[in-house]
Amino acid sequence: MYYYNQTLINPIEIDQPDPSAANALQEGLGGQFGEMRTMMQYFFQSLNFRGKAVEYRDLIQGIALEEISHVELIGRTISQLLDGAPGYHGKKFSVPGENGEPTMDMAKEQKNPHHFIVGAQGALPVDAAGNPWSGSYVHNNGNLILDLLDNLVLESTGRLQKCRIYQMSSNKSLRSTVSFLIARDEAHEMAFAKALETLGVEWNKILPIPKFDSSKYPEVKKLIDAGINREQYHFCLDSSQMEVIFNGSAPANDGSSLTTLPEPQENFAIKPSPERPEEFAPGLDPELQELVDALTDAKTKINGKTDKRR
Amino acid sequence: MYYYNQTLINPIEIDQPDPSAANALQEGLGGQFGEMRTMMQYFFQSLNFRGKAVEYRDLIQGIALEEISHVELIGRTISQLLDGAPGYHGKKFSVPGENGEPTMDMAKEQKNPHHFIVGAQGALPVDAAGNPWSGSYVHNNGNLILDLLDNLVLESTGRLQKCRIYQMSSNKSLRSTVSFLIARDEAHEMAFAKALETLGVEWNKILPIPKFDSSKYPEVKKLIDAGINREQYHFCLDSSQMEVIFNGSAPANDGSSLTTLPEPQENFAIKPSPERPEEFAPGLDPELQELVDALTDAKTKINGKTDKRR
Amino acid sequence: MYYYNQTLINPIEIDQPDPSAANALQEGLGGQFGEMRTMMQYFFQSLNFRGKAVEYRDLIQGIALEEISHVELIGRTISQLLDGAPGYHGKKFSVPGENGEPTMDMAKEQKNPHHFIVGAQGALPVDAAGNPWSGSYVHNNGNLILDLLDNLVLESTGRLQKCRIYQMSSNKSLRSTVSFLIARDEAHEMAFAKALETLGVEWNKILPIPKFDSSKYPEVKKLIDAGINREQYHFCLDSSQMEVIFNGSAPANDGSSLTTLPEPQENFAIKPSPERPEEFAPGLDPELQELVDALTDAKTKINGKTDKRR
Amino acid sequence: MYYYNQTLINPIEIDQPDPSAANALQEGLGGQFGEMRTMMQYFFQSLNFRGKAVEYRDLIQGIALEEISHVELIGRTISQLLDGAPGYHGKKFSVPGENGEPTMDMAKEQKNPHHFIVGAQGALPVDAAGNPWSGSYVHNNGNLILDLLDNLVLESTGRLQKCRIYQMSSNKSLRSTVSFLIARDEAHEMAFAKALETLGVEWNKILPIPKFDSSKYPEVKKLIDAGINREQYHFCLDSSQMEVIFNGSAPANDGSSLTTLPEPQENFAIKPSPERPEEFAPGLDPELQELVDALTDAKTKINGKTDKRR
Amino acid sequence: MYYYNQTLINPIEIDQPDPSAANALQEGLGGQFGEMRTMMQYFFQSLNFRGKAVEYRDLIQGIALEEISHVELIGRTISQLLDGAPGYHGKKFSVPGENGEPTMDMAKEQKNPHHFIVGAQGALPVDAAGNPWSGSYVHNNGNLILDLLDNLVLESTGRLQKCRIYQMSSNKSLRSTVSFLIARDEAHEMAFAKALETLGVEWNKILPIPKFDSSKYPEVKKLIDAGINREQYHFCLDSSQMEVIFNGSAPANDGSSLTTLPEPQENFAIKPSPERPEEFAPGLDPELQELVDALTDAKTKINGKTDKRR
Amino acid sequence: MYYYNQTLINPIEIDQPDPSAANALQEGLGGQFGEMRTMMQYFFQSLNFRGKAVEYRDLIQGIALEEISHVELIGRTISQLLDGAPGYHGKKFSVPGENGEPTMDMAKEQKNPHHFIVGAQGALPVDAAGNPWSGSYVHNNGNLILDLLDNLVLESTGRLQKCRIYQMSSNKSLRSTVSFLIARDEAHEMAFAKALETLGVEWNKILPIPKFDSSKYPEVKKLIDAGINREQYHFCLDSSQMEVIFNGSAPANDGSSLTTLPEPQENFAIKPSPERPEEFAPGLDPELQELVDALTDAKTKINGKTDKRR
Repeated sequence: MYYYNQTLINPIEIDQPDPSAANALQEGLGGQFGEMRTMMQYFFQSLNFRGKAVEYRDLIQGIALEEISHVELIGRTISQLLDGAPGYHGKKFSVPGENGEPTMDMAKEQKNPHHFIVGAQGALPVDAAGNPWSGSYVHNNGNLILDLLDNLVLESTGRLQKCRIYQMSSNKSLRSTVSFLIARDEAHEMAFAKALETLGVEWNKILPIPKFDSSKYPEVKKLIDAGINREQYHFCLDSSQMEVIFNGSAPANDGSSLTTLPEPQENFAIKPSPERPEEFAPGLDPELQELVDALTDAKTKINGKTDKRR
Repeated sequence: MYYYNQTLINPIEIDQPDPSAANALQEGLGGQFGEMRTMMQYFFQSLNFRGKAVEYRDLIQGIALEEISHVELIGRTISQLLDGAPGYHGKKFSVPGENGEPTMDMAKEQKNPHHFIVGAQGALPVDAAGNPWSGSYVHNNGNLILDLLDNLVLESTGRLQKCRIYQMSSNKSLRSTVSFLIARDEAHEMAFAKALETLGVEWNKILPIPKFDSSKYPEVKKLIDAGINREQYHFCLDSSQMEVIFNGSAPANDGSSLTTLPEPQENFAIKPSPERPEEFAPGLDPELQELVDALTDAKTKINGKTDKRR
Repeated sequence: MYYYNQTLINPIEIDQPDPSAANALQEGLGGQFGEMRTMMQYFFQSLNFRGKAVEYRDLIQGIALEEISHVELIGRTISQLLDGAPGYHGKKFSVPGENGEPTMDMAKEQKNPHHFIVGAQGALPVDAAGNPWSGSYVHNNGNLILDLLDNLVLESTGRLQKCRIYQMSSNKSLRSTVSFLIARDEAHEMAFAKALETLGVEWNKILPIPKFDSSKYPEVKKLIDAGINREQYHFCLDSSQMEVIFNGSAPANDGSSLTTLPEPQENFAIKPSPERPEEFAPGLDPELQELVDALTDAKTKINGKTDKRR
Repeated sequence: MYYYNQTLINPIEIDQPDPSAANALQEGLGGQFGEMRTMMQYFFQSLNFRGKAVEYRDLIQGIALEEISHVELIGRTISQLLDGAPGYHGKKFSVPGENGEPTMDMAKEQKNPHHFIVGAQGALPVDAAGNPWSGSYVHNNGNLILDLLDNLVLESTGRLQKCRIYQMSSNKSLRSTVSFLIARDEAHEMAFAKALETLGVEWNKILPIPKFDSSKYPEVKKLIDAGINREQYHFCLDSSQMEVIFNGSAPANDGSSLTTLPEPQENFAIKPSPERPEEFAPGLDPELQELVDALTDAKTKINGKTDKRR
Repeated sequence: MYYYNQTLINPIEIDQPDPSAANALQEGLGGQFGEMRTMMQYFFQSLNFRGKAVEYRDLIQGIALEEISHVELIGRTISQLLDGAPGYHGKKFSVPGENGEPTMDMAKEQKNPHHFIVGAQGALPVDAAGNPWSGSYVHNNGNLILDLLDNLVLESTGRLQKCRIYQMSSNKSLRSTVSFLIARDEAHEMAFAKALETLGVEWNKILPIPKFDSSKYPEVKKLIDAGINREQYHFCLDSSQMEVIFNGSAPANDGSSLTTLPEPQENFAIKPSPERPEEFAPGLDPELQELVDALTDAKTKINGKTDKRR
Repeated sequence: MYYYNQTLINPIEIDQPDPSAANALQEGLGGQFGEMRTMMQYFFQSLNFRGKAVEYRDLIQGIALEEISHVELIGRTISQLLDGAPGYHGKKFSVPGENGEPTMDMAKEQKNPHHFIVGAQGALPVDAAGNPWSGSYVHNNGNLILDLLDNLVLESTGRLQKCRIYQMSSNKSLRSTVSFLIARDEAHEMAFAKALETLGVEWNKILPIPKFDSSKYPEVKKLIDAGINREQYHFCLDSSQMEVIFNGSAPANDGSSLTTLPEPQENFAIKPSPERPEEFAPGLDPELQELVDALTDAKTKINGKTDKRR
């Protein structure tokens, strides 16, 4: 079973809205090598896992759990990059478009108009060319060696694409998330490469992919200096054997070593998103808002009882 | 951030393999109204949520978390229904197909040959007609009323389809999972219908959809008698306001009432899946198996340290 | 603007249910060369038509209108072939699947399980392999000659596929509809070939495609003897110039000639479809049925006033 | 069977070409919640309808017919917004691109280059992100309550998206059509909400969706003042029971009431589209044009006989 | 530029028609890891290749050329397995389906009815679940290491799936082609693994994937004994540097070594396919056949001049 | 079997990078009527060919071979138009994006961001709207007349689209390739039209499609003057009967005549593509580059032996 707490795995920096940057980032969310695929691929590999070598399953499943947090992180970053893009400043119950005003005039020129027509300036399960995510992206052959190798290719391609996206915008919101994912994809490359090492493969100097000094990216450097590209978290509330594999020398063969942790050492508050009247989101009028307000007020006490679980 | 423990939300009964039943069940997993969609739709609605009415977001997000467990449950049920379908009894390191034996002769006649060619007798992210799951299934308009209404339609359609699948097989593995999902989809119908009630809608007697006495299904009756069709779990480790909405009289208007809980009152052990040599899953030969065994043995102590988190 | 009356363009004969035959017929409905495409292709060509040669547009648009009737005809034939396929004989308000009965056991073995899980034993907008219809099937280049040639290929391929489907089942419901469509596709081949004749092309003996004596198919012979393979209807309530093209000698060069008519000389009553409790279709319980009945009764007089338009 | 006359359901105002506006409008035509889906969804629900409550079927089928007119209206509006976008002023038989002139230089920068490469500055069966329309958009469960609820969600989402598109451009061609569709989608929301009212649901104040004073949109106000958001047309040439449902107080609960009519009180002439040599549309050279002209001339008398039907 | 001669890369044995076996084999042709993908992936990687390390490009491009022959081989095998499946014995100009005979009755029950409705008992560009091949299968990142690793995964997955298909049928036509592809995919695994070896990776004992003694498959053993699993052909008429990589010890580390050859040491005659009247293929009637015959006769001399090129 | 030499079928002129022009050209590569489809459609028609009229098969197969060269030509043109688009001038082993520089800032604004994120400024198997190529584009009915007619429509539509693309850019790289394809598509129209002439069809004056004086396009005129629009090459190393059909008067009925040749009279050198560090293509660091260099040096002699085949 699955649980959550209302925190982010990495903070999203505040910067100007930038719909093109948001669209580029969609590749990392809903693209063929994006976070929705890693999450689903590892999830299917876990639940269809066969045999007794549970340390491999726990490695895969722990990363699957992290990928859910990545989907949330990148999704919220996209939302933030879109938020307020058309710069509408109407008040809560005013009518956007009143008197025929083309309030969202610029929206139809943006890379993916769905961000404004289908969604309410929020993330979509599509890639940077607007193609919806497909179940055919999930590879789960059932052959352990092959699945590990496929996962290594997946992480490497994801990291490659993010390194390219890094160069496409200096927007701080985009950069904070992309840099984190570059560092974490490197950790995941280590995880699957290490698993293959346990089966005899030696990687020499080809890892990580792409092969370059990512510490030259200032935002990435900070994260690497903190060591997050050599850590892996298992997110398991009962018991995980991930560490059986993820420990010892890193397959990057650069003298670094691997550390398994139950969860990241820090977590981060989630910034709530404002209403957007021009999108009719959430779309309550005064009468309905009154109902919602009454609801919230009247139930504060009940709420007090239930909101702490442990 | 997201966590898990290695348990199931409902037990899967043991019965004979039945690939056709497995294929029918794929609709509930990867179909347009299946569990992958509910999971992803509620997840996107949560992360793109706008405004301060967080009790609605917590309702949606809590159900999203449950849906992950449903994807796992239905996925494992499909795997179990497929497992051993061709009835191969070779030993671990024998060669399946040896001497030209057509070991999986029956596989090419099954409803979806991908279960045997692409997967290793495991669940796939596709529907009962073999179409891969698509990101276009996810509806997230950002308009609160509309998203709630769409979710109600989604749960109702999901429940309708599962009631039809119930009638398609008396295989106990299929029945145990389908019956549980019929009961839980009813709870989810209650959740979204109740949220709409807080905005003024009165449902009179149309709920649940489909409208029939599901207690005539013996496997469902047991679950309803235990009350699970009027409970909702929030799965939140810190704090959830779900109960602000999910409480009081049920919108089925049958005299029953709603209860919010942090998690299900029981959880269930996961049955490991055996290796399948005829699928080359996991596909280790004696040399590689030795490496894996050594790994497991040598690290037992390390493992002892890390596997309990709290 | 568009109008209808509640009649069929050809009668559907009564025969046994046959889900495989229904599935084969889906190709003619939702396949790449099926009736949904012809309808949509000619509709888009009509609304995007450029220039003054309106006789060509009227030809295309008139056939578009007929294709809507074909979609209805083939859709209803599929429904009839599926109707009662699992042979459930429960009474109206009984609970299908009661006591765990696998009422629709055979459904999971049928060619497309969606006919029983997603639809309620009714037609779907998919092809015989289960692929959903796609907008990419619609060809509308805007170049008149090319659009006419593409339409000729479309009708010929449609007719070819129906001649193949004819041979796949002797079920009378399938045969009555397929035979009608073979004859009508031939008329449509004549229409587009004649339009190309007006631009100078001579077809000699290659038409129709496929080239064989279709009067050897008894059900087709009856329709050909009545001349329907050389008629075209314009379905236009005000004015159509279709006849400017569709007249004179047929491009089959077999001595026959072409006739334009406003509509078919006969039309046929529609047989209502029964409820199917095992599909929860329509799914009213006694309370809701009472509401519906009251509605029907109370409004009979009002209805009397409005139901005749001309 | 289906008929038409050569008129529009609403006039399209003349304004400058605007390919971005045309592309935004594609969502309303070929999007997941656009007019092609409403047309096809209601059409399939009608032909697969089960049981005796024909007033519900007639409601659905009547709206299906209106949706065909909507597809035509929105399609022609898109064509008009694209028409002449590259501003080519060559004469009829001149060669566009002569001497290597990049006549359509700007076309490759437009939102969807298919408007200029695949179509001839005309509407396409795709959405605003360029995805082709899919048969999987059509929901037809066969369960009456669920289909009505799904239709209500569909109309509400369609209206929401059109309210967003309204704000994206003040182009009069776009506005005239979008405003009409906002008003009509509201009528359709009323239709399906009213049908659910007959089954006991009370909507209080949540309708229409999105909830705002659309009379603040000047173009919409004019249409609302004329009452078209509370009318429904059945378009049936013989007999319809639509009025049994669509009458009495509107489920918006704003004191207004519903009126069923056989067809809209007015209809509007269709403006022919000019040839576009730069698109080779229609693409006749002088020799072929002569053949077409001869055809038109020679047959004027014949034509006189056939073009009035009633 | 590209050339061909009319020969096969491996002979197809004669056996009974078997449509289910044909359908399973479709995965190897049009599946996500089938020959169409390998062909297109390597072709795109070749034409987009960057930099001076042309030995890697020549390796990839040479294999691309072989894959075209594989597409032909597997396509013809599928055709042969389908050919005559319904067992129709009409004469050339008889009318199949004459007198209403259901000549292809069994066709609608086969795994993919498209083999009989859309194609004429021939191969289709689809997978074993009927999904059309997609351009999204092609991976070409431009990063050399990653593309090589992706290719290794691709070949391994292809080989795994063929080993599974091998076990699904003992039909000799299927077996002759599948066995050849198992052996050749192993050679291709060697090729990409060796290329990675030149960059430092050591594979130890994990190759080939899947890991088993494939010489226990009698048909495969014969090919391995002839050494074809350690050969690679470059198919280049001018100059290829493939051998710079493909030589020396095999990365399977089993003592074998690699040999580059310009082309396979043998090639095989292509068996012509008979006409199929029941499919209207090729569909000439006596009049048209006469035209074709005349053409063939009259031109025999001309033909004599042109048919030898070198 | 299939062979190649490392030459182009037409030279690509050098001009500035232009990503929009590259994107327009994608339609000609991966669009529904682009070169990937012609290649695959003719390839499938060849391998599934039935009956003894091998001159038709040889015509189709010879053109299939040419289409492979077209895919390469148009692919390399797209790559060249993209190459250096962001204008990055870093040295080989420098780190692109160093110090947070947004090296590829402009990339996220381009028509298809996949050219920069998924590919490394190279061609993709997609169309100009970003949709991946689909196997459903391949039409192969098995009926000879119909397949020829479909091929004629395909070539005509391809030529129409290229004539439109011609007008969209005066970039010399785009123009050199598009003009060549306009001329060659005309030759292919002649081929299939001539094949239909042998079956009796007379085309009068409708060919080629689109109908205009393409010699007004200076780049096309040069090619037409050289006669390439009336030649066809069979590319067959052993024997082809293409000339039985492709000879005599052209079906354009303009006094020209048709000539079959074994291959084009000229071929052209391929320009190597430079590395692109900002894309991590090919992505070697100094250590790995050293391995590659050593490999190339050490093996020069071996290479000398193998690189000439005939």
